[in-house]
Amino acid sequence: MGGDHGAPVMVAGALMALEQDASLELALVGDADVIHQELAPHTPASIGRVTVVGTESVLEATASPRAMLRQGPGTSLWQALLEVAEGRAAACVSADNTAALMLLGRKILGPLSGIRRPALMSQIPTARGMTGLLDLGANLEVTAEQLFQFALMGSVVQASTHASQPLIGLLNVGHEQSKGHSVVREAHDLLEQSPLNYHGYIEGHDLFAGRVDVAVCDGFAGNLILKASEGLASMLLGTLRSSLQQGWRARLGSLLAGPSLRRALAPLNPDKHNGAPLLGLNGVVVKSHGRSGVLATANAVLEAGREVKKNIPERISEVLLAHPAED
Amino acid sequence: MGGDHGAPVMVAGALMALEQDASLELALVGDADVIHQELAPHTPASIGRVTVVGTESVLEATASPRAMLRQGPGTSLWQALLEVAEGRAAACVSADNTAALMLLGRKILGPLSGIRRPALMSQIPTARGMTGLLDLGANLEVTAEQLFQFALMGSVVQASTHASQPLIGLLNVGHEQSKGHSVVREAHDLLEQSPLNYHGYIEGHDLFAGRVDVAVCDGFAGNLILKASEGLASMLLGTLRSSLQQGWRARLGSLLAGPSLRRALAPLNPDKHNGAPLLGLNGVVVKSHGRSGVLATANAVLEAGREVKKNIPERISEVLLAHPAED
Repeated sequence: MGGDHGAPVMVAGALMALEQDASLELALVGDADVIHQELAPHTPASIGRVTVVGTESVLEATASPRAMLRQGPGTSLWQALLEVAEGRAAACVSADNTAALMLLGRKILGPLSGIRRPALMSQIPTARGMTGLLDLGANLEVTAEQLFQFALMGSVVQASTHASQPLIGLLNVGHEQSKGHSVVREAHDLLEQSPLNYHGYIEGHDLFAGRVDVAVCDGFAGNLILKASEGLASMLLGTLRSSLQQGWRARLGSLLAGPSLRRALAPLNPDKHNGAPLLGLNGVVVKSHGRSGVLATANAVLEAGREVKKNIPERISEVLLAHPAED
Repeated sequence: MGGDHGAPVMVAGALMALEQDASLELALVGDADVIHQELAPHTPASIGRVTVVGTESVLEATASPRAMLRQGPGTSLWQALLEVAEGRAAACVSADNTAALMLLGRKILGPLSGIRRPALMSQIPTARGMTGLLDLGANLEVTAEQLFQFALMGSVVQASTHASQPLIGLLNVGHEQSKGHSVVREAHDLLEQSPLNYHGYIEGHDLFAGRVDVAVCDGFAGNLILKASEGLASMLLGTLRSSLQQGWRARLGSLLAGPSLRRALAPLNPDKHNGAPLLGLNGVVVKSHGRSGVLATANAVLEAGREVKKNIPERISEVLLAHPAED
């Protein structure tokens, strides 16, 4: 029921994901009447892999944490997390806001043993492939120990896909030892002493240069970096598009170069990388961007499927046993 | 003497600025032998507007704050700031690191009366013109009062150029009242109660959409946003360029559309917007990007000239009198 576009987009995205991954089964959680109404026009073969879990109410997007807890088990997000907690579902995908996912995720699924705070991670397309960036807003203020655990969790995720010994970078305002505030400097020391493959401090521009496999920062900066980047990319592509409509030379040029341009820019489409795991919970939870359309929603669902197959929570627990948090 | 490329680029940039603004006179501060050597091949008419101020030593880029103070008055940065403090120069331009500028700027020029902490501001090209972003790294941790003063100083700068009642946005992880940590929320309250033209919270993507004239955040996040954006823009332009070389259709298309593309993307060149004022000091100080080439260096010098003509420090003082800091 979540996200800016609600059930119509969520249902269409869910059905698209089912068509792309034949191993998926989906429980759609929320207002049963609304969901059935959205499902009605669709009769793909995949519809047999959909069940509807009706709930009494829907989380209010602007509710305060206290109000969310007061609304209690009747909401769609609460119920979706309960499906995971009670073993009826392997993962929860939601486009609700991060604070709500964090609050109810911790309450209903609980954090993995030893994890201070779960963190939200996204895959960023860079000049050299994908870099995982975390935290993206689940933790606006952090401790050094938390930053260290973000690095550890990010490393587990990247190791499960494309990097055998993921290189970790700690985002800071400079590369030199003397740079940064005390929390960043303490996290730097923890990472240097750890067996993680730690590169050291990285700056903002190193992120898109693809210097590291995992980039770690507090959720306030991470959220601003991610959204500013999305805004800049969208502005640049808009500028590009309108400049290619100005005059017959540009229009003809764009006809000729268009396919090549589209091919080159396609991997940068944020919809393709939608689906940010909330790492560190006792179960797979994936946040879909609030503004997601159908394709982006489908990709968040597919991402949840991949996280389940990779056993990410179990792997994080295993690595945590080797690096217990200090008390 | 500063920056990644040292005297050759600084001198060439200074001479380029002199050619573009006939009202400028420049004192080049540093190793006199090196500077004279760089000046030797140049004999433009403008050379009569250059003097050389020799110093014994040069600030070490990696020096700790304590080491900088110990190095004392012999360094080029110290002397350049002293030229301003003692009235021989109207502004100081430096490509030294932010921490050094901040430390020596506060020591030698001093903050404007009532200013908690000076802040570094840059002009960001957006979908609707230029937005001032501050702080960019002079203050990694901030109080609500400091964020308020950043808004006030940014407002003075934008009012002096293109916005009569500059619209202020406070960067946060969401637009809703409940979002953000306590410092951001307190700054929000201060701004709402002030006579500044305050829009409210903005998110990362609002920055490049040009929603506001001034965007305010702590220097840690601001530095990461700015550098990540530079990195992303450079990656996107690189991808674009290489995609236009692939195959005869793309190459022909790029020949036709090239001029239009270049015209559209030119305003986004960060070199054009180089020169970030360190606002809140008792004098004009402009930081040039460490990686600046000749054109970027020239633009930082021209920016310093504009700041002087706009009497920015005096204007900030006037506005501060109307909004004294609370104790």
